[in-house]
Amino acid sequence: MTDKTYPVIEVFGPTIQGEGAMAGRPTHFIRMGGCDYRCHWCDTDIAVLPEKVREEQTRLTAVEIVNQIQDLPKGPKWVTISGGNPALHQLDLLVIDLHRNQFKVAVETQGSMWKPWLNLVDQLTISPKPPSSKMNTAKNLQLFEGFMGLMMTQYPMGARVCLKIPVFDEVDYEHAIGIHQQWSQIPFYFSVVTKMGGLYGDFSGGEIDTRDTLLDRYKWLAERVAGDARAGDTVAIPQLHALIWGHGRGF
Amino acid sequence: MTDKTYPVIEVFGPTIQGEGAMAGRPTHFIRMGGCDYRCHWCDTDIAVLPEKVREEQTRLTAVEIVNQIQDLPKGPKWVTISGGNPALHQLDLLVIDLHRNQFKVAVETQGSMWKPWLNLVDQLTISPKPPSSKMNTAKNLQLFEGFMGLMMTQYPMGARVCLKIPVFDEVDYEHAIGIHQQWSQIPFYFSVVTKMGGLYGDFSGGEIDTRDTLLDRYKWLAERVAGDARAGDTVAIPQLHALIWGHGRGF
Repeated sequence: MTDKTYPVIEVFGPTIQGEGAMAGRPTHFIRMGGCDYRCHWCDTDIAVLPEKVREEQTRLTAVEIVNQIQDLPKGPKWVTISGGNPALHQLDLLVIDLHRNQFKVAVETQGSMWKPWLNLVDQLTISPKPPSSKMNTAKNLQLFEGFMGLMMTQYPMGARVCLKIPVFDEVDYEHAIGIHQQWSQIPFYFSVVTKMGGLYGDFSGGEIDTRDTLLDRYKWLAERVAGDARAGDTVAIPQLHALIWGHGRGF
Repeated sequence: MTDKTYPVIEVFGPTIQGEGAMAGRPTHFIRMGGCDYRCHWCDTDIAVLPEKVREEQTRLTAVEIVNQIQDLPKGPKWVTISGGNPALHQLDLLVIDLHRNQFKVAVETQGSMWKPWLNLVDQLTISPKPPSSKMNTAKNLQLFEGFMGLMMTQYPMGARVCLKIPVFDEVDYEHAIGIHQQWSQIPFYFSVVTKMGGLYGDFSGGEIDTRDTLLDRYKWLAERVAGDARAGDTVAIPQLHALIWGHGRGF
């Protein structure tokens, strides 16, 4: 059982979480390979496109992953498991091993597929994808409703869960508000989409965001949220990691 | 009793809170005049220097302040009372009136002077000033210890309180870590000092921060915090309002 291996793309840290409820908090990261989505502006195709995942992955057991975390410089109390979509995998052993090593565990997933092991984690960020992802939004909303229904009825996680929706434009914003209104009891974070070419290259028209274009988009979002009574008690935070380091591997 | 007036410098919103536990959250602001500190990099001398406070203030009753808040465009569920140091004043009537009008109330203070009305608020941010403020740090630490002693024993505020320390350099960072270690049970936020000339003009050597210099300082701080086991489960966030709008009145 413990020699089961997982497709790991990167293990890195210490760094900070750039978005959502954990924004600014020191953490290590485990990036799992494999994804059921193909978001147009995805910034980690190495964890998404099957040929790249095959090329980039290292198959590691839970114990080997935790050993790699322990070999990183000390600092963060948190380990964040992201992807790709980590909920594609059965990661209960990994979470238990991280807890055994005194780490708190955060997970980021798009909320397309519930797994009972998600109930073990200390912070679950559910990040449904907006229309600018150019995915089938209606179908993805159905998957999200299924995920939320299971979580709320069978695995109520209380304060350990939040919603985080990346927003590029007004269409995305209205989509996000709709989800917030439906799940208003759950802490809600707006994030800002970063243009960096995209998986399929044409989303950005070849443009790559700079600090200034990112902050201008955040300015629009912050003013939109602040002036909208429907946004109520939500939070709007830019991608702090993109502002600090730009986009690339290892952060 | 209700015709008691307070020195108000600005009432503005909707905007977002730029720092600390409420970073990114929509809020209105009430800026009170008067301060017992003279921080070298203070960005609101209109609320601090007595001659400027006399010039800029409007004396308003609690009801008049709440009326001004109600006249602002709707949106935020929060009202943040800042200064200056709002703890110079007896603001229980104001907080009660804001609550009566369905607002949650946040307060920002340096923690030099406890007032029982602070126990009424929904989020209290205590922001002791670091050595780069060029204040008497040892004396201010004594005042802070007194404040914390009263709060922890007579008015335990639990999850409603956080510490937020602005950091300019390594000396400030070590000072902040010391305070975190002493009060490790309280949620702790690092912020980033913004250079904008300063009350007395020589802190910045005439330099005013740009988005790039601010983000470079934040990069240093984020990497310092992420790699420091003593920083444990803290948070480092830049001044989001300064990144969006620069420094000036009305935000």
